[in-house]
Amino acid sequence: MSEPRLVEVRRNVLKQNDVIARALREQFRGAGVFVVSLVSSPGSGKTTFLEKMLTQLQPQFRVAALVGDLATENDAVRLARSKAPVKQITTGTLCHLEAAMVQNALQDWKLELDFLFIENVGNLVCPSSYDLGENLRLVLLSVTEGEDKPLKYPTIFNSADVAVVTKTDLADAVEFNWDAAQRSVQSVRPGMRIFRLSAKTGAGMNEFQSFLSQKLAEHRSVAQI
Amino acid sequence: MSEPRLVEVRRNVLKQNDVIARALREQFRGAGVFVVSLVSSPGSGKTTFLEKMLTQLQPQFRVAALVGDLATENDAVRLARSKAPVKQITTGTLCHLEAAMVQNALQDWKLELDFLFIENVGNLVCPSSYDLGENLRLVLLSVTEGEDKPLKYPTIFNSADVAVVTKTDLADAVEFNWDAAQRSVQSVRPGMRIFRLSAKTGAGMNEFQSFLSQKLAEHRSVAQI
Repeated sequence: MSEPRLVEVRRNVLKQNDVIARALREQFRGAGVFVVSLVSSPGSGKTTFLEKMLTQLQPQFRVAALVGDLATENDAVRLARSKAPVKQITTGTLCHLEAAMVQNALQDWKLELDFLFIENVGNLVCPSSYDLGENLRLVLLSVTEGEDKPLKYPTIFNSADVAVVTKTDLADAVEFNWDAAQRSVQSVRPGMRIFRLSAKTGAGMNEFQSFLSQKLAEHRSVAQI
Repeated sequence: MSEPRLVEVRRNVLKQNDVIARALREQFRGAGVFVVSLVSSPGSGKTTFLEKMLTQLQPQFRVAALVGDLATENDAVRLARSKAPVKQITTGTLCHLEAAMVQNALQDWKLELDFLFIENVGNLVCPSSYDLGENLRLVLLSVTEGEDKPLKYPTIFNSADVAVVTKTDLADAVEFNWDAAQRSVQSVRPGMRIFRLSAKTGAGMNEFQSFLSQKLAEHRSVAQI
């Protein structure tokens, strides 16, 4: 008896989320800000990547970040080292961010930005169903997690736009099989672009920055039409 | 409006889960089997650890495993290399195992076992609230995920009995800070026992096996009273 009710309630929550996500997306488009969300398993290196990327983008771009976690403000503290404006969203026991949390966090912010990053709660399941109004969703996968994660968590890889393989400096130590990883991603999301980088050594970071710059330019040219 | 309804429905689902978990625990006690569940983030090394542990225990003990995943039977295939009986539970989009799934998977199995292992879906949030009737819950944390995970996912560390730090062969490469990890665990779950091991090199595996043997002996002596 409880199963159909639960499904029904979930559907309503999702519908409401989609309405808010659509409003956010309009707001982002109006402000000309390109919004990138990050999803991954805990410990895949989202925060380290983001701290480096915020630092690297700042001479040229106006950037900011929202970061979700169940508990602690650790990630906001780490990201703030980049000198970019950062806000923590604490979700309690909720395993994902929702559009309303993003809307709420942005209430007292002026969106005079080029890039807004939203780091989701570390989870390869829950965040997949929640649209946050973002323009680009990155799914991160560290070489230490194994090549099969896309096959085991297909929904989140399917809901993402781009895959980023992180901690490539450890690839040899863990005998990471690039061909197997490539096959896993492509079988779940054919044609998905895959970046390889190490926030520690900096390898691949410039290539990713170029990709983001290009995406921002495309976004603004579309927004002006 | 939808929030209280969702909470209410969740409570019912959990209550039903607890009833089944209690029945399972009774069944396990009657059969004299010691049940160990494993929770962790995706890619922390649950399957590798379990494959090695099943192999290592078999000369002396009767062992079997259930393994949960959203999709694929990859883990069951890997665990079956240990020659132990293994069954995959595929959860679809559900981010955790429930007691009813365990009950269902065990229906055609005779519980003539010393140890039954239950590998949960890779997730540091959802599995924490679901009792599976296990006697011991292990939370695994790989050195590559960072020392702060207990602080960021306190509920799952709090719901577990023992912590296992995995992939210790990579500790130097990732500059893992043992003191910080120890402090994180202890601040969330004071007094929690922490094992350090590498399924790759075998370091710490014998110590863990001794711990399990001792737990089994204790379990049986209590069951007989």
